[in-house]
Amino acid sequence: MGRIVTLTTDFGTADGYVAEMKGVLLTIAPDAVIIDVTHDIPPQDVDFARLAVERMWLRFPARTVHLVVVDPGVGSARAALAVESRERFLVGPDNGVLSPALIGPGARVVELSVPADASATFHGRDVFAPVAALLARGDDIAKLGTPVPSPVVRRTPEPVRRADGGVEGEVVAIDRFGNAITNLRAEHGAVQCGSRVIAIRHSYADVEVGEALALVGSGGAIEIAIRNNDAARALRLSRGDKVILRPAR
Amino acid sequence: MGRIVTLTTDFGTADGYVAEMKGVLLTIAPDAVIIDVTHDIPPQDVDFARLAVERMWLRFPARTVHLVVVDPGVGSARAALAVESRERFLVGPDNGVLSPALIGPGARVVELSVPADASATFHGRDVFAPVAALLARGDDIAKLGTPVPSPVVRRTPEPVRRADGGVEGEVVAIDRFGNAITNLRAEHGAVQCGSRVIAIRHSYADVEVGEALALVGSGGAIEIAIRNNDAARALRLSRGDKVILRPAR
Amino acid sequence: MGRIVTLTTDFGTADGYVAEMKGVLLTIAPDAVIIDVTHDIPPQDVDFARLAVERMWLRFPARTVHLVVVDPGVGSARAALAVESRERFLVGPDNGVLSPALIGPGARVVELSVPADASATFHGRDVFAPVAALLARGDDIAKLGTPVPSPVVRRTPEPVRRADGGVEGEVVAIDRFGNAITNLRAEHGAVQCGSRVIAIRHSYADVEVGEALALVGSGGAIEIAIRNNDAARALRLSRGDKVILRPAR
Repeated sequence: MGRIVTLTTDFGTADGYVAEMKGVLLTIAPDAVIIDVTHDIPPQDVDFARLAVERMWLRFPARTVHLVVVDPGVGSARAALAVESRERFLVGPDNGVLSPALIGPGARVVELSVPADASATFHGRDVFAPVAALLARGDDIAKLGTPVPSPVVRRTPEPVRRADGGVEGEVVAIDRFGNAITNLRAEHGAVQCGSRVIAIRHSYADVEVGEALALVGSGGAIEIAIRNNDAARALRLSRGDKVILRPAR
Repeated sequence: MGRIVTLTTDFGTADGYVAEMKGVLLTIAPDAVIIDVTHDIPPQDVDFARLAVERMWLRFPARTVHLVVVDPGVGSARAALAVESRERFLVGPDNGVLSPALIGPGARVVELSVPADASATFHGRDVFAPVAALLARGDDIAKLGTPVPSPVVRRTPEPVRRADGGVEGEVVAIDRFGNAITNLRAEHGAVQCGSRVIAIRHSYADVEVGEALALVGSGGAIEIAIRNNDAARALRLSRGDKVILRPAR
Repeated sequence: MGRIVTLTTDFGTADGYVAEMKGVLLTIAPDAVIIDVTHDIPPQDVDFARLAVERMWLRFPARTVHLVVVDPGVGSARAALAVESRERFLVGPDNGVLSPALIGPGARVVELSVPADASATFHGRDVFAPVAALLARGDDIAKLGTPVPSPVVRRTPEPVRRADGGVEGEVVAIDRFGNAITNLRAEHGAVQCGSRVIAIRHSYADVEVGEALALVGSGGAIEIAIRNNDAARALRLSRGDKVILRPAR
């Protein structure tokens, strides 16, 4: 089996753009094993994609190539990148979407050249997919471009300690189930959003169906949920909403 | 080529949860061939998932591993299961989603242990995917858990014979095209929903575009359809609606 | 590795129909490499599917088998086809969805026989997938059916030259990002839709965020876009809307 190439885009699938990328990949690297991560990133939502990458990139085996194309700046002066970090490769635009692999020591980052005949609107097909295929074939990243000292890094905001002893964070994502994922970490205590205080529990099953709870989600951060319901809709939570951690006393 | 592992979830793909499972699978079973069944099961809709499993599980080759994670009870006392039935394997929660493989003779069912460090909200990644990978590698199911004598089985309701000679069934699913799939079986006669009587025909092409018909769907059950239109919307049909079969005389 | 089989359907994935096809494919051709193109073609939209096929079919390596099932006429007298064209194979209904491979010299087209026990509503599973699997195994297309002299061909309308020197085309597709893709080709000048005139630029980055532009899209046709916004929605563009090319002077 060849190396794994994962695909993360905001293209949807209906238009055939993703298929064009898959065709390019398999033409250059016939043995590559293509794995769809998602094509349903909200259009041009770099932070949404960054969080999906953060969640999954290290779950794949060493030598996996992650191709990430959420690229509102395509055709502009933004650089095209390939990254080697913690034994994985990532390819995508220099807009912060690859940040999880850029933070921490040891990342190698190169800027890719854009072929003269590349479409000005579809670097996924004409720049990123060919490079992902070359990495899947085992090419050395150093030969694919020139080093980039300071790629764009975007970060989830850090929580802030308040004078009253609370820790102020925010909702950083709403998932498909309507769970509101925060940037707070704790296993005990409660969270406050607006005037509502919600205790941190171990699992959904610790409350009745329809009841709100907070809990440590599978990524380690506190989530606000309603058992078997959509918390974001019921509690009117949005990305960016403030959430205050009230530690257990 | 390694064994096939199919994935059926209600996760959507955008959040990266499915990708985490794929990464875990490929890390443990690098030769596994991952096939997406769907990630678009309506959230927490166990019966919808059960019908998709029923439709597809035996279409795959012997030794296929079907990983099915629609799991509203994650973190509760519900068991985690692996099943061997009719030369296929299935892994998922003990909530009825695996019922098609549990009905009939010869199924072996084991309860999986939950690792101490498993997330309370994501057994798909921490319990089910690792076991699916071990089955894909050829591990013996008997070594993966302890036998379960009475797993949860959910069934499509049986039609009931009426005093007037009709057979009363119901709409059990609405598919993407708006076809209303019932639990009735017959090749001739008509069906009645509300006051409307619709003849059973052989195929969509037996009626004009826009006209309603009933026909034997690809799963063997009677469907109510409108040629080139959405019958569920036009006829206001929902899951659970009664449909009466009027046999041909 | 076996041959690639791509799948393009309007089935969605939730109901399990696509999975049935995948199971049939892998049972007959266990080494086939299945690649999802899309299952999100709008239901029964043959032209939408045709444009996706046009975009992607030649991007895949020689010997790829493209299985395309958007089939509003299933069960009618429409023929079932297999096509060999430019070293690729295509399988699908004779309704124009395979047109990109039928235009031009050298295409071989055969009509497939429909097994007596095939479902009247699901030739994707019972007719097309088995034939795609046989082609993936290397079977000769000539043995799979009888030659078809005049398959149905659907074409994107040709632009028309106007007396005033303009070229009148139309919007042929709206993509996921809301870009309105036309049937016009030019690298300079402007396009007029309604009373609005929009200059052709090189890339999105040539205008401010929120500003409209026209540009040569990745398929070579002129697209009307708004930088980082949905042009079809903002400008109320639909398929079939007239767009007039005003060449640069």
